[in-house]
Amino acid sequence: MSGALAVIGLGPGSPQTLTPEAAAALDRADALYGYGPYLDRVPAKSGQTRHASDNREEGSRAAAALRHAAQGAKVAMVSGGDPGVFAMAAAVCEQIDRGDAAWRSLDVSVVPGVTAMLAVAARVGAPLGHDFCAISLSDNLKPWGVVERRLDAAAGAGFVIALYNPISRARPWQLGKAFERLRQHLPASTPVVFGRAVGRPDEKIGIYSLDAVDPSAADMATLIIIGSPLTRVIERPGRSPLVYTPRFVEGGH
Amino acid sequence: MSGALAVIGLGPGSPQTLTPEAAAALDRADALYGYGPYLDRVPAKSGQTRHASDNREEGSRAAAALRHAAQGAKVAMVSGGDPGVFAMAAAVCEQIDRGDAAWRSLDVSVVPGVTAMLAVAARVGAPLGHDFCAISLSDNLKPWGVVERRLDAAAGAGFVIALYNPISRARPWQLGKAFERLRQHLPASTPVVFGRAVGRPDEKIGIYSLDAVDPSAADMATLIIIGSPLTRVIERPGRSPLVYTPRFVEGGH
Repeated sequence: MSGALAVIGLGPGSPQTLTPEAAAALDRADALYGYGPYLDRVPAKSGQTRHASDNREEGSRAAAALRHAAQGAKVAMVSGGDPGVFAMAAAVCEQIDRGDAAWRSLDVSVVPGVTAMLAVAARVGAPLGHDFCAISLSDNLKPWGVVERRLDAAAGAGFVIALYNPISRARPWQLGKAFERLRQHLPASTPVVFGRAVGRPDEKIGIYSLDAVDPSAADMATLIIIGSPLTRVIERPGRSPLVYTPRFVEGGH
Repeated sequence: MSGALAVIGLGPGSPQTLTPEAAAALDRADALYGYGPYLDRVPAKSGQTRHASDNREEGSRAAAALRHAAQGAKVAMVSGGDPGVFAMAAAVCEQIDRGDAAWRSLDVSVVPGVTAMLAVAARVGAPLGHDFCAISLSDNLKPWGVVERRLDAAAGAGFVIALYNPISRARPWQLGKAFERLRQHLPASTPVVFGRAVGRPDEKIGIYSLDAVDPSAADMATLIIIGSPLTRVIERPGRSPLVYTPRFVEGGH
């Protein structure tokens, strides 16, 4: 079988953060699959077909791309950020695991990209400078109780927390609940960073404290970083503050 | 003050994963600072000075770069992977926080990159496909008890775990201890991925199970991913296996 499927990370959105490896993989493809707004970021190329699908259709999108590759085509699946972080690489693996046995013979590759938490962290300093975790706040794919247990475990053990998929029209209350829960573990002054569309014209970054943060300032595309008790804010004259988590925990040597 | 300091992520090592934004920031610099082997990855440019330092000198390297920028130079600090993940961005913020007040007026920026866990994950499929955490195993900067508490919390709550700085000549036993600890929480068959030098000639990837993994197969530059109880391995005829963590946790809707 000569077909191939590459799952490609576009990074946070600006062409300036697309790696040469990802650009080359896009250029090689006969067909592009992906969520419409991500496909729109890829410059048109003649002879290359485009197959846009909706946000919530990851499974069927992955299966369609695998079927297409199994016919011998070079197929690219585009993903925002990094395809391995709450994105299309796992959806493709799921389909290979449970789908047509012939798909296991396909040349499947994943091209990494800069994921949202790294882009947002870079904009404010180094909030992920020590141990951290990434949690999807969506309870479409897991029970809300699991989300709560992970928030408790992470905050209780001193991890900085990056939240993906914080809020949507169908999930309006989860982010507020998450902040409530985190206030039981963390100081009121814990820095919270909201970031969206890094490197794009509609980029927006906000720095708040846990006691005063307003969940309604977030939307579907916002990435949220909640500090640990060690995370610090450096005020700067005439410049936006820096937020960072020191590399040292007291008692190290 | 007209000087500037950019802390730049080189990605996992191949020029193919250096973002255009990072390449442009390197090109603009009057002076490059960094750990020698990272500096060696940056092509020489005439008129640009180079200031290599040793692995364990992050604090003094950051201070030297800030002093240089404060003299009006455009300084680049190079970092492997992403500078915000167990790398130079936090070291620079620490120096600004405690150093010369004038450093707060400097133009300081961080240019993100593809961090090792994303590069290693991409090579094997999507092991970070659901909630995950990143832990530095170095007890130079924190007490070993904190590392253990975080391993317990992460494995107990179902996070996939990425381990940075797993082993060194001065820290020979920590990785074995970490595996022992994780075996108390996780099934013997839990997939463990070792990856180093992704995209470079000496790239090496290994897939093991938690009961059989050998810590001595790792070195300083190895990134380790330990699955959750849901992480799966897909065997493929004539191809290396895929390792992935499904997006679904039972009970989601």
